[in-house]
Amino acid sequence: MSPRVERQNHDPSCHTDTNLCMPEDIRKRANRRLAIARGHVESIQRMLEDPNVYCMDVLRQIKAVQGALQGVAGVVLKGHLEAHVATASERGDAAELVEELLEALKLTQ
Amino acid sequence: MSPRVERQNHDPSCHTDTNLCMPEDIRKRANRRLAIARGHVESIQRMLEDPNVYCMDVLRQIKAVQGALQGVAGVVLKGHLEAHVATASERGDAAELVEELLEALKLTQ
Amino acid sequence: MSPRVERQNHDPSCHTDTNLCMPEDIRKRANRRLAIARGHVESIQRMLEDPNVYCMDVLRQIKAVQGALQGVAGVVLKGHLEAHVATASERGDAAELVEELLEALKLTQ
Amino acid sequence: MSPRVERQNHDPSCHTDTNLCMPEDIRKRANRRLAIARGHVESIQRMLEDPNVYCMDVLRQIKAVQGALQGVAGVVLKGHLEAHVATASERGDAAELVEELLEALKLTQ
Repeated sequence: MSPRVERQNHDPSCHTDTNLCMPEDIRKRANRRLAIARGHVESIQRMLEDPNVYCMDVLRQIKAVQGALQGVAGVVLKGHLEAHVATASERGDAAELVEELLEALKLTQ
Repeated sequence: MSPRVERQNHDPSCHTDTNLCMPEDIRKRANRRLAIARGHVESIQRMLEDPNVYCMDVLRQIKAVQGALQGVAGVVLKGHLEAHVATASERGDAAELVEELLEALKLTQ
Repeated sequence: MSPRVERQNHDPSCHTDTNLCMPEDIRKRANRRLAIARGHVESIQRMLEDPNVYCMDVLRQIKAVQGALQGVAGVVLKGHLEAHVATASERGDAAELVEELLEALKLTQ
Repeated sequence: MSPRVERQNHDPSCHTDTNLCMPEDIRKRANRRLAIARGHVESIQRMLEDPNVYCMDVLRQIKAVQGALQGVAGVVLKGHLEAHVATASERGDAAELVEELLEALKLTQ
């Protein structure tokens, strides 16, 4: 996916020497919250089996799942900022990491 | 959830007389697309099992799912606008429907 | 910009016969709120004259203006839904109006 | 607004010793782009003086300004990440900066 080089072991939860990988607690927390979001998606699928379902009830539930996914994104982003971006100056890959982050957030101009 | 009154049968796919319900083709299309989004969520859950996963790869996939959900919301919204909002003046419930829609879109002020 | 045909005078505030134009109260309300948003933009411009300004203070103010613009968009959308979309079935231009609205909201798929 | 302590002079454009302030090139670039966005807001205000203006034309212009402001936010965020967040581990204020950033982006959970 996106291997990174020259990590200097700032992140004890990372299992390789050449990758910036996700802190384990963040990874598990994100996974738990994603499981909840998936359950929510499944409940909307069941709503959509009902011929009498009302459009706006479905739309509200979709918005709620989008909010839940935004929460997962926030967890992942927080982990990335603390574990990788905040240490980038020491590693010397700040420009690369910031560019990548802005692209992932669709905030490049 | 949100029963609506006095429908005048503008929507042949609706199975009750007192509800504005989702046009059947929209409901099935939304369900198919939601199934794809759910599969995408499941693939992110598998990514998160890998201790070497990179934060930004996860964040990008979450953004992709959010885009897919926005697509489902667009399908539902289009069906609602065409089947229910565009006929609201004839039924006399325009103000109520518009208010509800803006709230669901979080666009009230 | 975007002339519309065959209006049947449902909107008394519109000054032409061939355009769906914005209800006057909505137009004035949107203008007042836009003036406030513009004042807010000007205050951020003044913040940016100060060499000691802090990035996050600027970012927060930009977010606030985006919220204010979202409010203006909500005003305009509400007027459009009530004055034009809710009456579209009577005029016979529902499909066109809905398509255009989803595009403007960037919700087409 | 939001004074920060113990800066170690990583940012030569900052005029105080106790503030993390915006890099000068970022500040000027943000100001130029904000001036353009403000001109765009003024042109929408002129559109709204016209009784024949069409709702969707206004909505599209508001969306365009929101995109422009998102661009300014991206400029500011990039400067902040590179000048302040990427050096946070060296200064020892990573947790504080990350929390503040997620709040400003409304990504806290």
